Amino acid sequence: MPVSVEEMKAALDAMGRQARIAGRALALMSSAAKDNCLRAMAAAIESEAERIKAANALDLEAARAAGIAPAMIDRLTLTDSRIRSMADGLRTVAAQADPVGRVLSRTVRPNGLEITKLSVPFGVIGIIYEARPNVTVDAAGICIKAGNAVILRGGREAFNSNCVLADLLNRVAVAQGLPDGTAQLIPWIDHEAVRLMLKLDRYIDLVIPRGGERLIRTVVAEATMPVLKHYKGVCHLYVGRDCDFDMALDIIENAKCQRPGVCNALETLLIDRSEAADFVPRFAERMRKCGVELRGDAEFRKLCPEAAPAEEADYYAEYLALILAVRIVDGVAAAVDHIETYGSRHSDGILSRNAADVDYFLRNVDSSTVYVNASTRFTDGGEFGMGAEIGISTDKLHARGPMGADELTTYKYLVRGNGQIRQ
Amino acid sequence: MPVSVEEMKAALDAMGRQARIAGRALALMSSAAKDNCLRAMAAAIESEAERIKAANALDLEAARAAGIAPAMIDRLTLTDSRIRSMADGLRTVAAQADPVGRVLSRTVRPNGLEITKLSVPFGVIGIIYEARPNVTVDAAGICIKAGNAVILRGGREAFNSNCVLADLLNRVAVAQGLPDGTAQLIPWIDHEAVRLMLKLDRYIDLVIPRGGERLIRTVVAEATMPVLKHYKGVCHLYVGRDCDFDMALDIIENAKCQRPGVCNALETLLIDRSEAADFVPRFAERMRKCGVELRGDAEFRKLCPEAAPAEEADYYAEYLALILAVRIVDGVAAAVDHIETYGSRHSDGILSRNAADVDYFLRNVDSSTVYVNASTRFTDGGEFGMGAEIGISTDKLHARGPMGADELTTYKYLVRGNGQIRQ
Repeated sequence: MPVSVEEMKAALDAMGRQARIAGRALALMSSAAKDNCLRAMAAAIESEAERIKAANALDLEAARAAGIAPAMIDRLTLTDSRIRSMADGLRTVAAQADPVGRVLSRTVRPNGLEITKLSVPFGVIGIIYEARPNVTVDAAGICIKAGNAVILRGGREAFNSNCVLADLLNRVAVAQGLPDGTAQLIPWIDHEAVRLMLKLDRYIDLVIPRGGERLIRTVVAEATMPVLKHYKGVCHLYVGRDCDFDMALDIIENAKCQRPGVCNALETLLIDRSEAADFVPRFAERMRKCGVELRGDAEFRKLCPEAAPAEEADYYAEYLALILAVRIVDGVAAAVDHIETYGSRHSDGILSRNAADVDYFLRNVDSSTVYVNASTRFTDGGEFGMGAEIGISTDKLHARGPMGADELTTYKYLVRGNGQIRQ
Repeated sequence: MPVSVEEMKAALDAMGRQARIAGRALALMSSAAKDNCLRAMAAAIESEAERIKAANALDLEAARAAGIAPAMIDRLTLTDSRIRSMADGLRTVAAQADPVGRVLSRTVRPNGLEITKLSVPFGVIGIIYEARPNVTVDAAGICIKAGNAVILRGGREAFNSNCVLADLLNRVAVAQGLPDGTAQLIPWIDHEAVRLMLKLDRYIDLVIPRGGERLIRTVVAEATMPVLKHYKGVCHLYVGRDCDFDMALDIIENAKCQRPGVCNALETLLIDRSEAADFVPRFAERMRKCGVELRGDAEFRKLCPEAAPAEEADYYAEYLALILAVRIVDGVAAAVDHIETYGSRHSDGILSRNAADVDYFLRNVDSSTVYVNASTRFTDGGEFGMGAEIGISTDKLHARGPMGADELTTYKYLVRGNGQIRQ
């Protein structure tokens, strides 16, 4: 139903106020109350699977009618197994330690003041995301675990699925004694609704956009509250001195090919000059088998004539496809310099058994995650043992790399005295 | 000497590049190298006191000629004792534990990957501040301790003092084996220079503005990099049930009067209705003695007729002067609601021996620092045992409350494997 901007603004303001009140109550909930609620949500998702699939069918029908790409249709589709997996995700989050109420430090000052640094929720978190309806459940679950109310804004393609899921989550929350407004979905697909949401800094403490670089740049430009974000992943591997080629080839194939469309996939391979003559033929053969298009510098192309020439832009590119930029470099310092210049500070690794080079690489690469002899694909909350993730940060402020429930808390200082005044 | 915007832009770009290179080197410096440098800086500040005072005399002369207010002149003045206190500040920072290289967590995943979360410097920190030249030394010292290069932009009033101090700091850094560009001062007082600095997100990882609310709002509006900031301190004390009046009066006097012009000074007093009749006469008398102007609600003014009426705006006001807003509230929940509505999430306290009310207040007040029976004036890096502070944050992201060298670090994950690929 069409609404005016004024009506939308009033409704979003009311949602913000409701979320703020809900957040204050959630901050005081016991671990057991939150975890029981998350488990009840998991059960409800499974028992209402038919209703969820019916809403999802409407989204799929509209998507097919609009001629949306098959890959997008796939991401939009909720099957029984994906529904179970959303429920299991909530159970995993429920099973983890409560990130709220951790005593981060406690000191008694010479004047007797006792200062306790305590982890507390942010309050209200806004999540802006694109096609996958499972984000509705994953994101809400982690926010609630960390004692935050959540305002969700999903993509237009998943609108019907998201409405059913968010309504279910909030209903279960209320039934379990959590406040009404624990999880709210913005019920409009207009872009105007996002713009208005991003001005609600009175109520929303933090916004996390998940999606393509364009969405994220828009959110950063328009948001009046802090944003935790991930721009892009231009991930590197460096084949260094004393490299085990068999291991390196398996890692490169995994990092590039196992899921090329994600942010922790490999985009540029750096090869040490000392290894190039021996390594490149085997590498070129493996990439040919995997169907990877190579774009290299002049020196690489002498050893691998079928490779296309790499332009400067190739070294900045996040292909998200079976394309790989390659460059021959002279030593570990040159590899680090390349990553410093072209990288996105996401995930970068060295493939080498040379202890000095490994140490130099670990110390000097300024990325959220720095690897030795492993695939960059491990930069992920689940793989890091966080149980679930709300996203990956390429920022340096507050959180870097995979973000779980711990990263959705802040802290406050409690200071207990008995009459202390400052001299 | 006048320069064009283009020349300024080129020079600032070169400073940024230099700082980035310096930051990379500083990140790898040993604790001893950094601490020795800080101590050598302290010694140099003392041995070059005459040169510093001569530069300061030029600033003071210009300030007097411009008819600047006495309070500002006082903040600008560098005496022998203030110079010694800057040097001692550096020695205190040198004596503290290194915030860089702390292992924040270490786990071995079931697949054998070893994940280490390590504290690391941000890289380059920008500081924008107003009249006090001592900030040049304090801020640079904390940045260096945390392994960051620093770009300083001081106020125009302290320009000559800042030039001498920053030059001295960078010279000592180089003499001690730290990189050139460890501490750089922007050598122009034009506002344009700040605007250009705030676009250097390629080089500057984080900006910290220190000064009035107007400066901070400008920085937030114009900066393309993250900002850690402090808007204002509308600090509250709540005289609750079972309050020790003698203690309360001393704390209120200290919080309001000891230094009214600072952000952790008291601005609004909330008095529980149950205590009002007994407490207000003694309180009014004490404030009269201290020369504090009171502005209260109708109920308070019945008990204290000499108080002026408080407008709504008084409860939002950061007076920074001997004025105090007062309101009678009905119970601890109403006190918390007032703070939630009008406060700035800086420092708020309860004065009470009632355990249930104290607990409610500590749990429900969402401020960086929440006090029980102590003055709000303790919200300060030195008083918290941080040794020195770079500022106080009223943000929730990354750092809240007093910020020391620890808060000028971020972290990265080091992942060591032996061929792991993702399934």
